[in-house]
Amino acid sequence: MKLKADRATLLKALAHIQSVAEKRNTIPILANVLIVVKEGRLSLTATDMEIAVVEQIASGAVRDGATTAPAAVLYEIVRKLPDGAEVELDHSGGDAPLALRAGRYATSLNVLAVDDFPSMTTGSLPHSFRIPAPVLRGLIDRTRFAISTEETRYYLNGIYLHVAEAAAGEAGPMLRAVATDGHRLARVQTELPPGAAGMPGVIVPRKTINELRKLLDEAADDVEVALSETRIQFTVGSVMLTSKLIDGTFPEYERVIPRDNDKILRVGKKDFSDAVARVAAISQERSRPVKLSIDRNLLILSAASPDQGTAKEELDEGRVSYDSTPLEIGFQARYLNDITDQIEKDVEFAFSDSAAPTVVRDVDSPSALYVLMPMRV
Amino acid sequence: MKLKADRATLLKALAHIQSVAEKRNTIPILANVLIVVKEGRLSLTATDMEIAVVEQIASGAVRDGATTAPAAVLYEIVRKLPDGAEVELDHSGGDAPLALRAGRYATSLNVLAVDDFPSMTTGSLPHSFRIPAPVLRGLIDRTRFAISTEETRYYLNGIYLHVAEAAAGEAGPMLRAVATDGHRLARVQTELPPGAAGMPGVIVPRKTINELRKLLDEAADDVEVALSETRIQFTVGSVMLTSKLIDGTFPEYERVIPRDNDKILRVGKKDFSDAVARVAAISQERSRPVKLSIDRNLLILSAASPDQGTAKEELDEGRVSYDSTPLEIGFQARYLNDITDQIEKDVEFAFSDSAAPTVVRDVDSPSALYVLMPMRV
Repeated sequence: MKLKADRATLLKALAHIQSVAEKRNTIPILANVLIVVKEGRLSLTATDMEIAVVEQIASGAVRDGATTAPAAVLYEIVRKLPDGAEVELDHSGGDAPLALRAGRYATSLNVLAVDDFPSMTTGSLPHSFRIPAPVLRGLIDRTRFAISTEETRYYLNGIYLHVAEAAAGEAGPMLRAVATDGHRLARVQTELPPGAAGMPGVIVPRKTINELRKLLDEAADDVEVALSETRIQFTVGSVMLTSKLIDGTFPEYERVIPRDNDKILRVGKKDFSDAVARVAAISQERSRPVKLSIDRNLLILSAASPDQGTAKEELDEGRVSYDSTPLEIGFQARYLNDITDQIEKDVEFAFSDSAAPTVVRDVDSPSALYVLMPMRV
Repeated sequence: MKLKADRATLLKALAHIQSVAEKRNTIPILANVLIVVKEGRLSLTATDMEIAVVEQIASGAVRDGATTAPAAVLYEIVRKLPDGAEVELDHSGGDAPLALRAGRYATSLNVLAVDDFPSMTTGSLPHSFRIPAPVLRGLIDRTRFAISTEETRYYLNGIYLHVAEAAAGEAGPMLRAVATDGHRLARVQTELPPGAAGMPGVIVPRKTINELRKLLDEAADDVEVALSETRIQFTVGSVMLTSKLIDGTFPEYERVIPRDNDKILRVGKKDFSDAVARVAAISQERSRPVKLSIDRNLLILSAASPDQGTAKEELDEGRVSYDSTPLEIGFQARYLNDITDQIEKDVEFAFSDSAAPTVVRDVDSPSALYVLMPMRV
């Protein structure tokens, strides 16, 4: 195998690759990148056995062949080469080391056998659709904060992607992303892309979501999604990410979304989240509770810490609108801000009482809905 | 005590203060800032019993008085107030909480008694001089990387600041900063400021150096330095930093500086440090060794890792000059780059042999000298 590639192109690909490759040294081959030149085309692959990323790269391929070399070292080296460098990779086959040359720099990297590199055979992926990258980004960004990190409830360790029947006022079925950790829930939907009807509901693991999200940073076009009951594959430009799905049943989340919360508070997102942050600053605890005391067109946020003192801030007429019976309710500051961080301009809270789940909406974006459990304050 | 202050002014002062205040909760009063309004002037003080920082702040003082409140919380709150806010601090005396108000935001902070706030009485500081902030920055930046972190050799845990007799070619005695951890040594000097003659040699602790260095970031004018055998005080604008000195004897470092190293290698700093980084990238160890193989106008850098492979880079005529007998010598990559990071343009190495300390100089700045121990490669 022999090829020449531009440093910047190689670096970009290796950045994607090395973040999937295993950092822990338990199975050495998983720390390697598979480098294949076939019919003059170069591809790089990394996998941790749950996720595989394959990237096609423009290169001057001189000789076909394949090998595997340490992903992190290769990335570090290419990163440190001068801008504009031309990189030559040369492997004579078998156990011979991989030579990398650029100008007067030369390295000889130990390789591991290509045959030992695990292939994530995808089998057939009967369902497929295309979705604009910004839309997929929106589904992920507005739900992933609510993914559970509790390993015992493994079926909550991802985003549940599925087709939802049309509700009242909706033209047809929707593609939905849902995540919950039991304390809060995020549900975001978009028009069902052609081809997605009939797809199974699937739980995409957190690591896959995070790797995908990085790829979407640079993407503006459509993303191709293909899936079966057990695998999902995203093609973003020249990168293909394949992942196992979480083998479990996502809870029937609709049951926990209150339908009849009728105490409606509206407040500007920035006014609200800044006030929450200032009030919560009094407490150093991780689960900083903030109390909302709500009266006609008046919201008082307050917090107390036995050690440090108390803090409060008032948002009054002109900043909040509320027209129902007075209410006091408490939430974790962090949970409030995780939600308001996703909201553009105005937030709408729909309360029932101080012990019942609260519904939060983005006034300008009806496609997103959040549920938040109160805490005793 | 009552006063009004502009948020930005208060924030800047609290940023200095909170970095000195103790984060650990062992002695609660040390986590507090002492707030004093006296004769209409506001000052803030923090101390960890080793260092004290006092900052004078422009404010509209309404009523004299003093109290102490949690530094970290106060900083967090002021940081989160809107830009341009006017902050009112109000304390009625004794155990009453400290009220902070800004617009519709109000907080009530628990206080601790002023009498319990430890004062770092400085006693008399018989020696004093002024030094331009950029010169002091230069002394610190080019030496602090070599400060030892080994607590058993506590007398190396700081920068040794002292007066050195004039050497050959120097007009008079110099003010010197020296740091060493036994593996490398950095010695930087500047003209002796008026008033510094006769000062004792003192070891300024690392934390003090780091806090001082932050203050110098914003400073362009002269810094006032005053000291005794046991204390040192730096006045940077409106901030006064007082610190205990390390009570120990700094080793006679001149003995370890070789005088007769006559194999001289010159190389561009950027060429050299980039090559070191690329070659060292082959190894993931912390003490990545790099071998320098030097011949007439030729430098080959190389490194090897049993797991990953080997790497080398050549710097030849036009990039290096060397005119002595061939030499092979090894150094820790990190140590090499710690030194070259301080060098502007061209590096000069003076070698004796592959087992003896090497002298490194900045070709354009004879005031700095570094010594580096080789390692076996």
